[in-house]
Order: sequence, then C-alpha cells, then structure tokens
Amino acid sequence: MKTNYLKNSIAIFFTILASFYSTKAICQDVYGSSRKQWLSIAEELKPNLTKTVETPQRIVSLVEDKSSFQGWKTVSGEPLTDLYEKSFKEKKTVILDFGKHLTGYFSFKVTPLRGTPDAPLKFKLIFGEVPSEIATPFDPYKGDLSRAWLQDEIITVMDVPSTVNISRRMAFRYVKIELLGSSQYYDFKIEQAQCTAVTSANSTPTALNSSTDVMIKKIDSIGLNTLKECMQTVYEDGPKRDRRLWIGDLYLESLANSYSFKNHDLTKRCLYLLAGLSDQNGYLVGTVFETPEPHPQSGQHLLDYSFLYNVTLKEYLTATNDYETAKSLWPVAKKQIEIAQSYVLPNGMMDFEKAKKDWWLFFDWNEALDRQTALQGLTIYTLKQTYELAKLLKKEDELKEIPDLIKKMSSASKANLYDKKSGLFTSGDKKQISYASQIWMVLANVTTPAEAQLALKNITNHKDAVIPGAPYLYHFFISALIESGLKAEARQALTTYWGGMVAKGADTFWEVYNPNDEYLSPYHFFPINSYCHAWSCTPVYFIRKYPEIFQ
Amino acid sequence: MKTNYLKNSIAIFFTILASFYSTKAICQDVYGSSRKQWLSIAEELKPNLTKTVETPQRIVSLVEDKSSFQGWKTVSGEPLTDLYEKSFKEKKTVILDFGKHLTGYFSFKVTPLRGTPDAPLKFKLIFGEVPSEIATPFDPYKGDLSRAWLQDEIITVMDVPSTVNISRRMAFRYVKIELLGSSQYYDFKIEQAQCTAVTSANSTPTALNSSTDVMIKKIDSIGLNTLKECMQTVYEDGPKRDRRLWIGDLYLESLANSYSFKNHDLTKRCLYLLAGLSDQNGYLVGTVFETPEPHPQSGQHLLDYSFLYNVTLKEYLTATNDYETAKSLWPVAKKQIEIAQSYVLPNGMMDFEKAKKDWWLFFDWNEALDRQTALQGLTIYTLKQTYELAKLLKKEDELKEIPDLIKKMSSASKANLYDKKSGLFTSGDKKQISYASQIWMVLANVTTPAEAQLALKNITNHKDAVIPGAPYLYHFFISALIESGLKAEARQALTTYWGGMVAKGADTFWEVYNPNDEYLSPYHFFPINSYCHAWSCTPVYFIRKYPEIFQ
Repeated sequence: MKTNYLKNSIAIFFTILASFYSTKAICQDVYGSSRKQWLSIAEELKPNLTKTVETPQRIVSLVEDKSSFQGWKTVSGEPLTDLYEKSFKEKKTVILDFGKHLTGYFSFKVTPLRGTPDAPLKFKLIFGEVPSEIATPFDPYKGDLSRAWLQDEIITVMDVPSTVNISRRMAFRYVKIELLGSSQYYDFKIEQAQCTAVTSANSTPTALNSSTDVMIKKIDSIGLNTLKECMQTVYEDGPKRDRRLWIGDLYLESLANSYSFKNHDLTKRCLYLLAGLSDQNGYLVGTVFETPEPHPQSGQHLLDYSFLYNVTLKEYLTATNDYETAKSLWPVAKKQIEIAQSYVLPNGMMDFEKAKKDWWLFFDWNEALDRQTALQGLTIYTLKQTYELAKLLKKEDELKEIPDLIKKMSSASKANLYDKKSGLFTSGDKKQISYASQIWMVLANVTTPAEAQLALKNITNHKDAVIPGAPYLYHFFISALIESGLKAEARQALTTYWGGMVAKGADTFWEVYNPNDEYLSPYHFFPINSYCHAWSCTPVYFIRKYPEIFQ
Repeated sequence: MKTNYLKNSIAIFFTILASFYSTKAICQDVYGSSRKQWLSIAEELKPNLTKTVETPQRIVSLVEDKSSFQGWKTVSGEPLTDLYEKSFKEKKTVILDFGKHLTGYFSFKVTPLRGTPDAPLKFKLIFGEVPSEIATPFDPYKGDLSRAWLQDEIITVMDVPSTVNISRRMAFRYVKIELLGSSQYYDFKIEQAQCTAVTSANSTPTALNSSTDVMIKKIDSIGLNTLKECMQTVYEDGPKRDRRLWIGDLYLESLANSYSFKNHDLTKRCLYLLAGLSDQNGYLVGTVFETPEPHPQSGQHLLDYSFLYNVTLKEYLTATNDYETAKSLWPVAKKQIEIAQSYVLPNGMMDFEKAKKDWWLFFDWNEALDRQTALQGLTIYTLKQTYELAKLLKKEDELKEIPDLIKKMSSASKANLYDKKSGLFTSGDKKQISYASQIWMVLANVTTPAEAQLALKNITNHKDAVIPGAPYLYHFFISALIESGLKAEARQALTTYWGGMVAKGADTFWEVYNPNDEYLSPYHFFPINSYCHAWSCTPVYFIRKYPEIFQ
C-alpha cells in the first residue's frame, strides 16, 4: 500500500507539473500581440451608417387568408391622412405599412386635437417583418429564444404634444400602434410616423442585364435588400434577432457584397474583429458581439464556421487584392489548418466522433442531419481553398504537407463514403442520404465530374433524402450545382427556392424556408424566426457572378 | 314681412358691431403686458431640485390580509443579498421596499452571472405607493382617468451588462420587478437597484416640542413627507398622478411650507405662474402645466380656487413681507374680487345658479354636496381676506365698497341659510345639511361665536349630514374648529382623521380617505388614487401654527 501511495504521489506530482506547463503554454498567445492590433484595426474600420428617413406608404388591415404566407394578408385601409388629421382616440389602433423592410428607429408625434392634454398616453407597438408577426399573439410565449427578441413595446408618453422616439432599433415593414391609455379630457392625433433607416451599404449595385428574367430580377432585388438590411456596423445575421456577426453569415454576405455594394471595408472589419476576438489558443469563436465592448460568445466554437473563415479571407483577397490584410491574418488561417489536421485519422478520414465532441458542427438547421460526410467534404474544401490562399501569399511552403493530405482525404472519402451503386455519398453508420453530404463532397471535388453531376441529380430525386433545413445550406447546393456544371439545374433550383419566397410575398429573404411548412421554426415559435436573414441573400452573388447562367 | 326683414337686418348689424367691440375689449389684456413679465419671473424662480440616491431596504412579499389597508400587507422576504448575488432567472420576480415614499428615477444594473449574454431581457416593472397597487391587476382597466397614470412599465434591455434607467419619474415605495423574457444561454443578476429621489424642499423643518404626543409627531412627520414629495418645480397636487399645479393645492401646500420647509420662492413662483397663465380677461385657470412650455388647462375655471388665489397671496405676504410680489400681483387679486361682485344679487346672496353654470365649483369630491352655502361662505371669506391684503398694501381705497358688501352678504347668509332651530346652515332648495356649509359659514364669520361652535358641534352629531369626501375639505373643517375656538375638537378631529391613515400604515397622506371605505375612488378604481397628495399635508400647518393645541 505504501509503495502504491508513493507511486500515486509521484504520479500526482507529475500531473500537476504537466498541467502547470500546459497552462503556461496556453497563456502564451499563439498570435502574440496581434489580437490586440487586429481589434484596434477593426475598431478603426467601424462604418458610419447611412441614415434615410422613410415614411409609411399606407394603412393596412390584416385579413386571415389561407392562401397567404402563414395565413395572413394585408389589405389597404383608410387613407394615411385619416391618421394624421383625425382622432386617434377614436381610431384606437392602426397598422402602418412602410412598403418595404426597414432597419432603424421609429418615431411619431402625438399632437392635441381638442382640449388641453392633462394625462399621459399609453401605447402598445408591435413591429413585424411579415404580417403574421402582427397578427399572432406572442404570449403565453413558448419559443426557445428570449421572448425579448419579439418586437413589441409598451410605452408611456408623459407629455403631449411630444415626439416619441423608440430607442430600440427595429427591423420591420409593418408597425401596429394600439392605444392602451388616454384621458377623457382631451383628444389627439398621430403625426409624422417615420423610420430613420440605417445601413452600411452605401453604394448602388450595377443593374442586371435588361433582358434578365423578371423572377431573377425580383430575386436579385430582394437579395440586395436582405443584404443591405443586414449590413450594419458588422455583417449581422439578422437585423431583427441575434443582430450579430457569425462567421458563416460573414462568408455568405461578403460573397454577395463583393458582387453588389462592394463595401469591402466591412468585410475587412469583420475578419479583423473575429481574429481579434479569437481565443489565446488561436481558436476562432463562431459569433461575436460589439457592445458594450467587442467580445466573443465565450466557448461558442463552430468547426465548420472556423474553416469558412479561411475561405472568406481567400475570397476577400481575390476580390480586393488587399495583400496587407491577407498577410496580417494569415496566421489565423494557418492555425485553422492545424486544427483540421489534428482531427485527420491515419486513414485520411476526419475523426468525426472527436470533432462532434469538441465542437458545434452546424452545417444546417436540420437536426436529423448526420454531419460526418459534410465535415469530411468541407475540410477538404477548406484545405484546398487555404492552399490557394497560401499560394497567392507565396506561403505554400508553410503548408507543404497539405496537397498530399488533400489527396489522401479525397481518396478516403471516395473509398469510405461513396456508394457506387446509388451514385450517392452516405454519412455515418446508418449510411444516411442527405443533400449536405452530396453538396460538400461535390464542392470538395473528390469525384469525377460525371459522378458529381450524378450525385446531385440523384439526391433531388431521392424520396428519403435529408433535405436542407434553411437557405444557408441551399447556398452550397446552388454552388455545388454550378461547380459540377449543372447550370440549368442551378438556375432552376435558385428560381424555385428563392422564387418560392418571392411568390409568398417576401420583402427580404427568410432565415428559415421550407416550401412545405411555412410555420417551421428551429425555435418552436415561427414569429421569432428572422424574416430578413443574411445567409439567404446569396442569389445576389450567383446571379451577378454567373451572368451566363442567370441573366 | 319686408319691414320685419329690415328690422332684423338692422338688429343683426348692431349685434355684429357690438360683438366686434366686445371682441376688441377682450383682446385688450386686462393685465396689460404684465402676464408675460409674470411668466418670465416664474421661469427665473424655477428651482433646482435636490437629488438623493435611495436604496431598497428589504425584499418583501405581499400577503392578503383583511385587517390591512385595502387588504394587503407586506412581509419581509429573503435578504437583499439574494437579489444582488443570485440568479434572477431563477428568482423571476422580486418586490423591493424602499422603506419610504420616494419621487424620482429608478435604475438598476443587469450583470451576467454565467455564459455570454446573447439576447435581450424583458421586464415588467410596477411601482406602488401602497401595497395594493402592486397586488391589484390593472387590466381590464375600468377607471375614469388615463390608464397611463398607473405606474407599470414593460421594458426591453437590449444589452447585458447595462444600467437600466427608467426615464419616467415615479412615485413609489414599492417596486415589483418581473422577468418576462430571457435567454437559456446565459444567466444574470440584478444589482444596484436605486432611486434618485428629487424634491425642491431643501431645508430641515424645526423639530416639534419633545413632549408632543407620539401620534401628533407621526402625523407631522408623514405630513412633512407628503409635502416634500409634492414640492417639485411647482407645488404638485400629487407626484404620481396629475403632477401639476392647482390653485387649491398651492394654497394648502404654501400654508404648510410656511411652517416647515420655508421655500417661499416656490410659492412665489407658483403665484406668478398662475398669474402669467391667467386668460386675457383676468380669469385665473385652476390648473397649469409646465411642459413643454408653461400653459394653462384651457377653460378649466374653478371659482372657489380662483378666490383662494387671493387668500394664498395674502398668506404669502404675511409669511414673507415680500411687498414687491404682493403689489405686482395685486391686480389679479382685485380682478377676482370684481368677479365675485359680479355674482352678488341685490339681496346679498351669490347668484348660485349662474355661478354653477359659468364655473366648476369644486369645494370637495363629494358629488352629493350642494355647494350654494359653501360658495356664499367662501366668497365672504375671500372678500375679508382680500380686504386685509389691500390694507397691508395700503390699497383699501380700491376696495371701498367691500366692507359694506361683506356686511350685506353676511346678513343675507344668516337670514337665508341659517336654521335657528337646528343651529345648522342649510344649502339649496332641499335645505341640505353638510359639513361644507357649516365650515364655510364659520370661516366667513357670519355668526356669533356660540352659533359657530354650535353649528360645528351639531354637524358632527348629525346622522344624515353630507360628509367630506377627501382631506381637502377636512383641512377647512379643522380650520373652522380652531377659528371658532373648539381647540380640543380640532385636535381630536385631526388626530382621528389623519391618525386613521397613520394607523392604516400611510407613509404619506392620501388624496382620498374615507375611514369607512378604503376602496373609495372618485375615479372608480382605487389603485389610480394618489396616495401622496398635497392637499392632505396640512396637519404640518396646524400642528406648527398652533403649538398650544397640538404640541
């Protein structure tokens, strides 16, 4: 026992020593003092937002209608002058339609009509991106995300006349104003309802070819609006909810931006911000916040998003030739490659079980998705893109082993994941068939062109395939179709999916869209979905990058 | 017909001519350019408020209890450190007790406890002067006054950590904080709940004689708090509701102020403000507002309040010897006398029917009250007080006819209103017996001292007498008792009535108090009553002006 005790004591001593050294190693920032500098560059690049005063276009009423999106349509009501000239005590409620999606600050005036105002007023305001948000009771609230994201506010207006400024930034097309409290001793009207809309999109994108199909034009226009609304002091995921920078959204928004508003400084700012807020081990954090001081969502590590940082940086360099930024941030890209390598098993397959344990693997909202094959594909894609970046920066020496690794992983993918019989890639022990697997294997380019086309064609005809749960994965689907040369199919898929939202009356593209379920919500309450979401804006990119397909 | 037509035309011509001249006469401001100057003096006298940071004393819970005021009592709950150190997501609701009535600005901090805040928070706050306000549901709202006066606010806190500042000034002792929305991804606590309390009472009143009865001391102390809370940039009627200057409240507050805080400049400001906001015919308006610019409640003419302006000015001069102000405002007082004279019938009685038609005759909340006799008494009282003011200003020549008028009106009162048999004054055709009639006849001094005492004694024993509906009229009752030499009765009445509120746990004296009906509300919803109301503060005046009776 005593010997054992001694042995244990020695073991404990060395364990403590080892952990001391490992702690010390952790304390040495892998990027040295760069993170602080990166943050400071990000701060300098913070854009001044463009402000535009927008006014409501009409008064509407909501009518239940099964054929309209989520069961509600708007119908033009009385003229706006009715609001601006007549008693609001009599009207009591109004729904204003600004005619388009806005992100900004709502204000209105209350002006006496009769008598001397002797008491405060109380109003309930509800802001909606889509009509159903105005029509659906929020309480009792059953959603997963904070109830506070829902855009309803109850306000007391102590002085009349006065201008009421809603300090919370709202994302909306519709606003309902309901009177909850007033005095019998005076009457008043509402005037000058307006929204000071903000965006960091500060240029006008070139027009599409005039001969472009009308639906493609509509999709492009709505995509531009979606992007514009999400472009604030960072690329936000959605201006209504979350309202923050995620690497995945940044990637898609920066692609669309490069072909439209070309505010490259915003991309640059976001790349620096994410680098500056990576942890001291060099791990990127999937999402970061700007206020009160820039800070990461601690512990929120997404492996697929981290990899897409590299792709974003490479695309940024390609779009701008800003070698200074790309060189400055190269250590971050290189670190992500090291992370990728650390998960590759000797057989060339990613250690999926370990990755799943260590990271959040997003890829799509669809919870049913087995992500093994998608991860394998994205990793290869990332290695390739990063190697391209290295070459542009003349740093391929630093990634000497990568070309061989790509080959090895590609072969392993083909050997382990491809089912020749069905012409489809499978994923996981249960050999799940999904869009995501085909998409990422095609983008990883592990097949022959014919096999790639076959996989993508077969998946669309596969009845039991796990389908994309949101527009985010749909982007990569369109991308894969184009990469594999299925141009007509790409156009068809884009027109069908995003065109489906257009047909349902979208002003901006939605966070979640399943053509067969308008009420689908990852948060179990559809009004808390974002109806202007960055990751849905990429038709702008496809339509403009590939005019031969879309214009 | 033709002749008639001509006659009619001539008549119409003269009518138009007459109305033109009368309009011209109206356009000539009876006070010349003085009103503008008075407003400017009032503006210069606007006080800087004293700010004090107050913190909650304990956490309480509300317990239904029939023996407590309005059925609710507070019970000490968990220690305050529980709030400041532990999860508010778990606690969800807290009621803070600041230990005393405050008027000011509430704020608190939200601080992360666990995880990175990724979503806004939503809270409901309810501020209560008394426990029942926190416990009684406000909706569906059935009260007569604006629902917006009730002190509940729903707020969204977009950033965590942050300091939440409620911009609306609240009047409260208790605040309930209820969490309506939060994120599952982080936890937080509430810290530094506090109220920046404001008042223009900026001195410490002298202490009462140490031998003063404990109940009298309590009444005095609560009266001082009531007055202090109502002393803002004007004498407000109540800091929770209405929050504005009324002549009637000004009169009572200025009396109490003269014997306590002695902020005579506030009285001066209010006298000038009311004069400056009188109409161009010289009619005072019963209540005025300070924001956005000082303005009157148009058309709100109260005859009894207008008369009390004169008494207030006389009392102000007596307290301060500020002859400059009294001389400056003398034209206003004189004009009110002219108004009074215009209602006196040849028999020495006020033309009550005409007055009732032309004016709001307040006197008391009790709607059952016939106000004829009270008006007759107040008019005589006002004539006397104003004549005293004229003598002080050596302007009695301007009121030459007044002494005779007083005699005539006094005799008429005795002849027409006094019922020798019952020793009581009656009012109206139905010969109503009320406190108000006895009070104002005694204050008008139309009887012998013995008759005065008899009337006041008899009324308290009269089963069917119309009783005071609020502390406002009770002030004049105490005053009448003292004036008639019923000192013990005055002390008894004050101790019983205001002491009744003390026994029920009042921190400040209430707008409405009927010992037999705790739920009485002139607005048909007791939580909208004001529980800190200026017109209830006058025990301060009596206790300190008549130490021989009360100390």
